[in-house]
Amino acid sequence: MRGDICMKALIERFIEEDLSGYIEFLPEIEARAVVTVRENGVISGISDAIAVFEYFGVSARTWFEDGNRITKGDLILEAEGDARGILKAERLSLNILGRMSGIATLTARFVERAGGVKIAGTRKTTPGFRIFEKRAIIAGGGDPHRFNLADMVMIKENHISLFGLERAIELGKQASFTKKVEVEVSAPEDAVRAAELGADVIMFDNMPPDKIRETMAMLEARGLRDHILFEASGGITLENITEYAESGVDIISVGAITHHAPWLDFSLKIV
Amino acid sequence: MRGDICMKALIERFIEEDLSGYIEFLPEIEARAVVTVRENGVISGISDAIAVFEYFGVSARTWFEDGNRITKGDLILEAEGDARGILKAERLSLNILGRMSGIATLTARFVERAGGVKIAGTRKTTPGFRIFEKRAIIAGGGDPHRFNLADMVMIKENHISLFGLERAIELGKQASFTKKVEVEVSAPEDAVRAAELGADVIMFDNMPPDKIRETMAMLEARGLRDHILFEASGGITLENITEYAESGVDIISVGAITHHAPWLDFSLKIV
Amino acid sequence: MRGDICMKALIERFIEEDLSGYIEFLPEIEARAVVTVRENGVISGISDAIAVFEYFGVSARTWFEDGNRITKGDLILEAEGDARGILKAERLSLNILGRMSGIATLTARFVERAGGVKIAGTRKTTPGFRIFEKRAIIAGGGDPHRFNLADMVMIKENHISLFGLERAIELGKQASFTKKVEVEVSAPEDAVRAAELGADVIMFDNMPPDKIRETMAMLEARGLRDHILFEASGGITLENITEYAESGVDIISVGAITHHAPWLDFSLKIV
Amino acid sequence: MRGDICMKALIERFIEEDLSGYIEFLPEIEARAVVTVRENGVISGISDAIAVFEYFGVSARTWFEDGNRITKGDLILEAEGDARGILKAERLSLNILGRMSGIATLTARFVERAGGVKIAGTRKTTPGFRIFEKRAIIAGGGDPHRFNLADMVMIKENHISLFGLERAIELGKQASFTKKVEVEVSAPEDAVRAAELGADVIMFDNMPPDKIRETMAMLEARGLRDHILFEASGGITLENITEYAESGVDIISVGAITHHAPWLDFSLKIV
Amino acid sequence: MRGDICMKALIERFIEEDLSGYIEFLPEIEARAVVTVRENGVISGISDAIAVFEYFGVSARTWFEDGNRITKGDLILEAEGDARGILKAERLSLNILGRMSGIATLTARFVERAGGVKIAGTRKTTPGFRIFEKRAIIAGGGDPHRFNLADMVMIKENHISLFGLERAIELGKQASFTKKVEVEVSAPEDAVRAAELGADVIMFDNMPPDKIRETMAMLEARGLRDHILFEASGGITLENITEYAESGVDIISVGAITHHAPWLDFSLKIV
Amino acid sequence: MRGDICMKALIERFIEEDLSGYIEFLPEIEARAVVTVRENGVISGISDAIAVFEYFGVSARTWFEDGNRITKGDLILEAEGDARGILKAERLSLNILGRMSGIATLTARFVERAGGVKIAGTRKTTPGFRIFEKRAIIAGGGDPHRFNLADMVMIKENHISLFGLERAIELGKQASFTKKVEVEVSAPEDAVRAAELGADVIMFDNMPPDKIRETMAMLEARGLRDHILFEASGGITLENITEYAESGVDIISVGAITHHAPWLDFSLKIV
Repeated sequence: MRGDICMKALIERFIEEDLSGYIEFLPEIEARAVVTVRENGVISGISDAIAVFEYFGVSARTWFEDGNRITKGDLILEAEGDARGILKAERLSLNILGRMSGIATLTARFVERAGGVKIAGTRKTTPGFRIFEKRAIIAGGGDPHRFNLADMVMIKENHISLFGLERAIELGKQASFTKKVEVEVSAPEDAVRAAELGADVIMFDNMPPDKIRETMAMLEARGLRDHILFEASGGITLENITEYAESGVDIISVGAITHHAPWLDFSLKIV
Repeated sequence: MRGDICMKALIERFIEEDLSGYIEFLPEIEARAVVTVRENGVISGISDAIAVFEYFGVSARTWFEDGNRITKGDLILEAEGDARGILKAERLSLNILGRMSGIATLTARFVERAGGVKIAGTRKTTPGFRIFEKRAIIAGGGDPHRFNLADMVMIKENHISLFGLERAIELGKQASFTKKVEVEVSAPEDAVRAAELGADVIMFDNMPPDKIRETMAMLEARGLRDHILFEASGGITLENITEYAESGVDIISVGAITHHAPWLDFSLKIV
Repeated sequence: MRGDICMKALIERFIEEDLSGYIEFLPEIEARAVVTVRENGVISGISDAIAVFEYFGVSARTWFEDGNRITKGDLILEAEGDARGILKAERLSLNILGRMSGIATLTARFVERAGGVKIAGTRKTTPGFRIFEKRAIIAGGGDPHRFNLADMVMIKENHISLFGLERAIELGKQASFTKKVEVEVSAPEDAVRAAELGADVIMFDNMPPDKIRETMAMLEARGLRDHILFEASGGITLENITEYAESGVDIISVGAITHHAPWLDFSLKIV
Repeated sequence: MRGDICMKALIERFIEEDLSGYIEFLPEIEARAVVTVRENGVISGISDAIAVFEYFGVSARTWFEDGNRITKGDLILEAEGDARGILKAERLSLNILGRMSGIATLTARFVERAGGVKIAGTRKTTPGFRIFEKRAIIAGGGDPHRFNLADMVMIKENHISLFGLERAIELGKQASFTKKVEVEVSAPEDAVRAAELGADVIMFDNMPPDKIRETMAMLEARGLRDHILFEASGGITLENITEYAESGVDIISVGAITHHAPWLDFSLKIV
Repeated sequence: MRGDICMKALIERFIEEDLSGYIEFLPEIEARAVVTVRENGVISGISDAIAVFEYFGVSARTWFEDGNRITKGDLILEAEGDARGILKAERLSLNILGRMSGIATLTARFVERAGGVKIAGTRKTTPGFRIFEKRAIIAGGGDPHRFNLADMVMIKENHISLFGLERAIELGKQASFTKKVEVEVSAPEDAVRAAELGADVIMFDNMPPDKIRETMAMLEARGLRDHILFEASGGITLENITEYAESGVDIISVGAITHHAPWLDFSLKIV
Repeated sequence: MRGDICMKALIERFIEEDLSGYIEFLPEIEARAVVTVRENGVISGISDAIAVFEYFGVSARTWFEDGNRITKGDLILEAEGDARGILKAERLSLNILGRMSGIATLTARFVERAGGVKIAGTRKTTPGFRIFEKRAIIAGGGDPHRFNLADMVMIKENHISLFGLERAIELGKQASFTKKVEVEVSAPEDAVRAAELGADVIMFDNMPPDKIRETMAMLEARGLRDHILFEASGGITLENITEYAESGVDIISVGAITHHAPWLDFSLKIV
């Protein structure tokens, strides 16, 4: 849980967002509260939810950690202290749990259907909340993919239209030996060229599973399958994920696990 | 558009989130890019998207403003300048547009079915991004509801279980004459008591439309309908909203417009 | 005291203001210090003063809480720890106590003469220190009034000259059902119109007590007294407050309680 | 005016204080506004007030600069632009002008009666607003005195009671050759000792003018008057300042110019 | 130059560091100033130096860009504007140029002797100034190496002593497919194992050039040379760099280019 | 150690610099680590290094305090706790120790050769890390000199070329009586004039020791030696420091102690 220690500054900002200008009007009164979940899912954000209660001087404990399966009705967290602190912590801690567990739960559903192929996120995250959403993906069994622009060099369609494939890869490889270079392709022959030019990862952008399978075969035939990772991306849903998973790629990245994830429903009750 | 001027500091934080540690590896090259939308919807976040481009010294213009209907294929925004700036602005500006327009679009669908009854949001927003999500609700034709804990006094079930209905309302009314006091009830007799105790707004929490209608009649009979606003909340969906809208309430608050809103799909292409 | 927990970030800024660039030149030495007050008054800021000492690792305790009467010579706070911490905490904690208690004391004097009519502050507060000044008003028995522009919609003279009374109120009422709408008037007929247009609060701006009384009678005659709060504002002093209090209004707002409040005099002595 | 360029970050914080959570409800409309003053005084804060308008995209101009005398009814500042920006800038810019000009005006009154002896401020300033209050003192013709604890070493009564006069001065002189060492004394013999120990400034704390005059004579007799500055402090008012000014000191520091300064009255009108 | 746009917030902090509490005492006066260099070297930080001048409203121009060779006596930058702004910008802009160009210059010397083998930095940078120091390494022709802990997974001696080589690599590879995994070894057999376990980069820690050469041969013999990058690190100086460069590695990382780089000497003169 | 309490916010920034975007991939495991030094020197930064460990929930202790001599091989600090915290704290704490002890060590070497004449720093410090570098100078036995522009008024060559010596000193003396005025001269006659005009400190800029000695004699002859401090600056090295120390000045300021100080070498080992 201590691994989350760098979240502190962000959590303080979120508290300020929900409380700026607030002036206390309740008297002090000790209380106990429980957070329960109203749907089945995978939990994420539990250490952050606890940190919110603790910020307000309320002690909180749980029996879960990120990534655990939870079931409708489960008692997730128990808080004890000044009721004023509990009531201030309520909304933010539930928002964190709801958003993060929603992502973790949807990620887990994709993971289940991917038959061992890695499910990865994207940079399509809510501004200001990315590190939490990335951690939720991990809790759901996924790979966070790039945290930000600095994380790996991606040569996308726009880069290629500006510089051409060859020059774009060359520029990307100069950035730093510490960074992998991923190249986005939509045609088999570009996949071959990217592999020959030394791409570390090749992403098939909006290519149907059949075409991906053929391209993989072509690459294998030329001895370009090893030492390169292959990623499918674009329009992947719970319905078609299995087909992609069987196309031979190593990774499937799914924007939907963040931008189409409904929140998981939690509630807090003073008991 | 200048009304959004206070978003600047937040936008800088989002930029930092997506760029910290990044070191430029592309040469300068002038480019033009267009943002298009791939689904029908209601736009929101357009001035913020432009602000992101301008932050990177890229000029950007649009033909839309928040709240406008947009149609699949519409050219939303045109940007011109150093391609490096365009590529840095791309993800954040699309994330803002995607999340905000998703909320605006879903809000507008609820508004359409509410037959003139006001649709309101909740405090169930992504931590750190609330003011943008509230503005998206407004763009969709909704009421933002409380921005934060300081905005109106809400006496909820937890307050009542701690202090009793009467004492809780009394405490709430002492906070400041500038603040309305809203009371959450789930039984008709509590609605009557809250009205008699001077609540400005009464919220029916998870009460079925029929029961709300009966309670409204009971209140009217006792001369307690005027000068009070009535809000329905809890479990409201696109399917049942019409029933709620016909129950006689003034406002229907819908958590789903933020926590179940899928993003609207935008893309950027260098041309 | 835990209600003040969100002040922490502000207090750190104030400490930085008083200490940036400072390099310690004193050796460690344990000491005990007492803060005493040199005038009669009402105390405010006591939990913040203690927080300043605790920031520097000094333990501090008090026998008072905000809103208590204090008498010349009273021992207000006792601090114990490294003298270097005590000396660093001294000026800021005394400045907080001096400014806040000065406001609380003057507020209490207005409250005493207002015979039960509510005394309220304004947004005329020292930039950067508003939440402390608002809390000082509460400690003095007053109502904090709007914390910031977001708190209630106020339709002032300038709004009316731009949009006309009717349109301005209409715009204000559209902002959100959660917000009261207050309208500033200086003529009886405008008070009537504002009441008819649904203002929640009507403020008589710089109107003499007699004229206010007449206007109130006119409103009552038309059945517009109930469900609306009335506020007097402008040029109110300790000398004329009683007349305003007897004019029939519910609230009197007094800029002087912040902008003309002399500080209460506290001192710290190492013993 | 560019000298104030480092105030920007602070002004943004003040704007946030007054606007956080605010959502625009007015339509765009061009307007012109004037700020006038309702009392005679000395102006301060004019460049900051203009910076607030400019922050909101409103152009503003003035005919005054800090330190100028202003007369009841003077038009101080003219602003032109979107009325929404003018109305957002209004309260903060007036608060800055009111507080700073209040201090400048009271400082100037002390300066007038001090017959050439320097009037200085103290660290008794409103937390978070110190640099503005120090600049207001300068605008009023005063000396800002220490900006913060790092500015000069002051050996006060509490230091002396902890370490003794000699050791305390020795410690102070070791801090850095760049810093003056000021010693606070309340007895003539301590003044002599402090002078002999190399104090750069000696402050007579709460000593009556007669006693100060005698002490100055004693110091002069021992050849200790030159190369040392002498400061009177404690309980100095507009009534007794002349006596202190004639006591022979170089500087008189007056806490009242910040902690007892009423604001100067400004108002903004849309024309 | 616009690529440096994200440095703005940092530069403001540095300005605050050098100016907090400063109150202007100079009158406005237009001036022109030139920055010259007193030693031969490689320049870095030029766009940042210009940004500092511009922050103070001073216009500045240069004839150089990062990475250019400069010669003793070269006029580097010309500034024109209010002398007060020039004098405030002076120290910070020279500190930036001095530190960054010092690093760039030393890096370039290593690069010259490395005969085409890549020279890389480390995370041994001055706290708070890392991104500038990394850019200085790039200006000198080097590779920035990891910007921070998130950039690549490094399995170092301490990780191996905690988890064993195999488990540590396995954990590292699970982090994310986007990240390379580098493994630090000090024995030939560990290099072989790391290569077999799928390390992307292998770093020879404090191994003499001969031993590195032997290990490289052993790896080549086993078909483990391709698809892996090899880095030498530890105790590398200008004296021994050539031997390391000839040992067969791809990269040599040199802590000295940051922690032993003397500043390059620049000065500013008003003309 | 508590004197360093204001460093907290800076240390958090440094942690963020090294960790932003990092996502934990190691399991929890308790460990013990020791920091040792690989060179002789003077330690500085020890309390900050400990603060970094404690930030990550790791307990740390030392047997040293800033300013102590340390010897190659000395065990400097022992840390115990979750290995993940130790590994996150490692680089930053070593960077702080390395940079600060490097400065302290070089300062101490100058102090040793200065025969009692005070060694002072300059404002030539790494942007963002100044207060740490100033404290390192103190640990090495030096005087920190001005922390920032606000600390003392320095009239340098550029000021004099703008305003003339007399006017520049006059302006400087008006800033505040709390500030010393230092004047930089390069000719004996300017030293005399500066002394006559009331400079508190006179700095000989790039003047050879002989010329300084002559000037000092000239000043003494005119009775201008007392009550003024004299500082030598410019081009001072370990080789020529003794000559400067014997020239009669009170202070020698040496830019090299910050801009030419190599780091002291520390390492951390998990045991």
